[in-house]
Amino acid sequence: MADATSSTQDSAALLREILSTLKSLKQDHAQLASAVDAINGRVNVLASVKQAHDGTTHDASYPSPRIGAQSPRIPPRGHHSRESVSSLDGGDKDVDGQVQSTSPPPRRISTTSKIILTSYPGQAGVDPLQMEWGAKDPEKRGPVIVSRAPSTIRRRNAIGAHGGSYSIYYALGVASHQVQTDHKPDFTNTEPAAKIGPFPTWSDPKKIVAMDPFGHLAPWLFRGVMQNENVEIRPSIAITKAHMRLPELEESVRKGSLVPDGKICINESGELNVTKIAVEPVWYLPGVAERFGVDEPTLRRSLFEYTGGSYPELITRNDIKIFLPPIGGLTVYCFGDPAKMSDPDVKLALRVHDECNGSDVFGSDICTCRPYLIFGIEEAVKQAQNGGSGVVIYFRKEGRALGEVTKYLVYNARKRGSDKASEYFKRTENIAGVKDMRFQALMPDILHWLGVTKIDRMMSMSDMKHDAIVEQGIPIRERVPIPEEMIPEDSRVEIDAKIFAGYCKHRGNDLRAMMMLTCVIVTTGKILTMEELEKVHGRAWDDVDVSSKCKVSIRLQHELT
Amino acid sequence: MADATSSTQDSAALLREILSTLKSLKQDHAQLASAVDAINGRVNVLASVKQAHDGTTHDASYPSPRIGAQSPRIPPRGHHSRESVSSLDGGDKDVDGQVQSTSPPPRRISTTSKIILTSYPGQAGVDPLQMEWGAKDPEKRGPVIVSRAPSTIRRRNAIGAHGGSYSIYYALGVASHQVQTDHKPDFTNTEPAAKIGPFPTWSDPKKIVAMDPFGHLAPWLFRGVMQNENVEIRPSIAITKAHMRLPELEESVRKGSLVPDGKICINESGELNVTKIAVEPVWYLPGVAERFGVDEPTLRRSLFEYTGGSYPELITRNDIKIFLPPIGGLTVYCFGDPAKMSDPDVKLALRVHDECNGSDVFGSDICTCRPYLIFGIEEAVKQAQNGGSGVVIYFRKEGRALGEVTKYLVYNARKRGSDKASEYFKRTENIAGVKDMRFQALMPDILHWLGVTKIDRMMSMSDMKHDAIVEQGIPIRERVPIPEEMIPEDSRVEIDAKIFAGYCKHRGNDLRAMMMLTCVIVTTGKILTMEELEKVHGRAWDDVDVSSKCKVSIRLQHELT
Repeated sequence: MADATSSTQDSAALLREILSTLKSLKQDHAQLASAVDAINGRVNVLASVKQAHDGTTHDASYPSPRIGAQSPRIPPRGHHSRESVSSLDGGDKDVDGQVQSTSPPPRRISTTSKIILTSYPGQAGVDPLQMEWGAKDPEKRGPVIVSRAPSTIRRRNAIGAHGGSYSIYYALGVASHQVQTDHKPDFTNTEPAAKIGPFPTWSDPKKIVAMDPFGHLAPWLFRGVMQNENVEIRPSIAITKAHMRLPELEESVRKGSLVPDGKICINESGELNVTKIAVEPVWYLPGVAERFGVDEPTLRRSLFEYTGGSYPELITRNDIKIFLPPIGGLTVYCFGDPAKMSDPDVKLALRVHDECNGSDVFGSDICTCRPYLIFGIEEAVKQAQNGGSGVVIYFRKEGRALGEVTKYLVYNARKRGSDKASEYFKRTENIAGVKDMRFQALMPDILHWLGVTKIDRMMSMSDMKHDAIVEQGIPIRERVPIPEEMIPEDSRVEIDAKIFAGYCKHRGNDLRAMMMLTCVIVTTGKILTMEELEKVHGRAWDDVDVSSKCKVSIRLQHELT
Repeated sequence: MADATSSTQDSAALLREILSTLKSLKQDHAQLASAVDAINGRVNVLASVKQAHDGTTHDASYPSPRIGAQSPRIPPRGHHSRESVSSLDGGDKDVDGQVQSTSPPPRRISTTSKIILTSYPGQAGVDPLQMEWGAKDPEKRGPVIVSRAPSTIRRRNAIGAHGGSYSIYYALGVASHQVQTDHKPDFTNTEPAAKIGPFPTWSDPKKIVAMDPFGHLAPWLFRGVMQNENVEIRPSIAITKAHMRLPELEESVRKGSLVPDGKICINESGELNVTKIAVEPVWYLPGVAERFGVDEPTLRRSLFEYTGGSYPELITRNDIKIFLPPIGGLTVYCFGDPAKMSDPDVKLALRVHDECNGSDVFGSDICTCRPYLIFGIEEAVKQAQNGGSGVVIYFRKEGRALGEVTKYLVYNARKRGSDKASEYFKRTENIAGVKDMRFQALMPDILHWLGVTKIDRMMSMSDMKHDAIVEQGIPIRERVPIPEEMIPEDSRVEIDAKIFAGYCKHRGNDLRAMMMLTCVIVTTGKILTMEELEKVHGRAWDDVDVSSKCKVSIRLQHELT
């Protein structure tokens, strides 16, 4: 009985302990459950998941947009319809995540308007079309897919958007119902108007890292992929032919320095026949990183952070190696037979020109940009007329890739300070933190793509351009400065500063490139001493217009009517 | 005894069952806890929170970049040092999140390299500097802060980056250690070279939505904020003065149609005095949305999704209303006294020009762009010479804001098909899904900013430009087409197509704008019938160069050496 009692007491004690443990566990469980709720809330916020019919508001939630009317099939970003957040699980492989090599059945895209802020590798529904940068066989290389067309969005293998920064205008068009997102481009008759390549450089992943060597042929080379996989593929390069007419060349014909041949320079007005190639940037990130001497993560992080946090996929999608940055591209102007550009037996004259709208279009006299461009075009034409090839390449890098606002600030500081050649670069560095942001490291890609293996006459005095080309294994046989008589008076400051700073002479300490190649470098730009340089002044505003010598009052009158 | 025994046995059985349940529950709980851990890990990955000393690898985790050497104070994105993920909790207010109106003590920025993929309102450490778009008093309006300088990053009140798409080059410079992230711009002597405004439009949040009306004065107006709050503020507008020289105007002087006056046209070479204003886009998102007739969430979502998922803060930071989009801006070329632009008593001649590099720089003969631009400049100069004001505004919207690649594809389709004026727009629409993506809705902002209240002579035939300006309450008294003799032969297709499509005549159904204003609209462009239009052909490639009639084989030879 005592046993029984003791046993009962033991039981009671056990029961109490169990109960207490149970209560404690219940409490733990409640806490855990609320922790899960909290995390779930955070995940929703992070992913900006918003149920279409969820009326609750949340700081970071997002109302359903009204894009539906004309484009009802707006897909959720990065993965197809899925109610549960678990689709974000990076480790959770989904049947839809498998590579489908045959035409998939049309997918019912949800009309709920979730926004996925960024995608992750392995995420359900994300199924990038395989590609191998630098592969020789286009089929093995595979197409660059960046389109967000409903059928394509899951198959993207590139970060960014078609058309670079013009995608902003596209977005405006979609928002305001002026563009249909399901439009299928009709590329009939848009094929390249000249044949370029293929060249061995096209399949060297180190030689071409900033453009897609198959970009001009993409819709045709990958027609099968487009049909079988129902994906959208667009060209990133287009080649056309045109006539062009420059008043300066008309003048040259008049003066007799340019003689019409009826084919390259076709008439007395100096009209030219030209093959034009527009190229949008397509970056292979590992290659771009290597070109700049940094590791890929550093490049990706910098591109993400120092553009103000754009394209988080640069960070989250390390499996995607291609990036279409929202910057301007380049245009090749080829005079004479395009096939001659890659012919090692004929001479090539080249001008690599960085955009300067104020001079190139409006003829500003503070720099030598348009004069140098015109000189480059004329020399290119003459080389083509003499049986060689003439090429001018125009890069969209306004104001040393600092933009026009910074350029004008520098102009003001120069004109208001002492506009001496000796202080030319300092002004830019004071404002922008850097003398020049054009970084020519990626520039030679286009030469590799064109099959250029040597340059006979380079119409440029820039060491940065020279070195970038030579380091890519393309020798430059002669460097040709702009003739004295073409230099606008006020731009002497610029050109003398450049010569002094070593923009225009080959730096002695850069022997590696010189020894690597048998290139003959001719520097004809006269190098001034520091003393002489001090004497080169630009036109101050006093000379421009007396009334404009107004260092405007920056205190605003508040008496607006 | 039997009872007691039975009771004890029952109890024991129960206890065993309870214990077993408890153990099972404990196991469930442990599983749940680890699931929560896993979710927490995923949230960390989503937010890209990475402990600096955490050596573990993860699909979406990110190695510490080596940017530190030269710029050791890379801050975590969007908030300052914080080890716990809880800083991401949108509801968790932090003392650091309070607005500090006095100079804060210098914050120790963590050197750990967390990457925050996007920020959220109320997030700890995020403390945007207050601003009120459209406020008349600049101090109340407050500065636009988008810089990512270490001291500024938490105070940003704008999405995007300085310099638009050139921030990509800046990022390359940071990655490759060629740019110091802690550089402080020295704006000495960079002040505007002409006084503009202030005008009543500056404080109307509906009239200026796409540029910062105080953008040219920002570093000076907000000097106190810069010093007290230790934030970086940069101008988004710069004003300078220059000389420019165009060969076409030299020819005009020679012909006697332009007479040098020594002040506006300064000499026999047709050299011009000009005030130039470069403007970078600064968008007030609610205003931009209204201008396009959509709600702000729709605009934000479209801008995020149709640029390929850039700037997630467009979605997560509804508290931030300003966006600096990565697109090109505009440049104003003002002839004569800038003060006259806003003088209602003198005549204003205006050309609003959208970039066309192929014509503006290279003189392509397929369009009328450069001829129209030159005509606009010459008319502007003459208006200024006659005591009025002449303005040319150059917008960076290459190829109808579709970019040059699309433009060349269209050229090819036109030349290879039947290049008839009647099919001109169809070609573009087939390829791009839209005739024209320039959307002029934001264009008139610059006119409001310049204080323009009416336009006497508008050198443009575009209805889109006309309507956008008139709808903004600025009447256009006369529209002036390009003179026949300035139209290149091959560009007749373009111009006749535009006249027919109503680009160039005022649409009858848009009476609202007409009735609203007492504007006299003169349309001098002759409208062809559909039949006549069919007869306007461009030069096919047969005429260009017989050898170039190569619809190149798009099948690549695989026999690369």
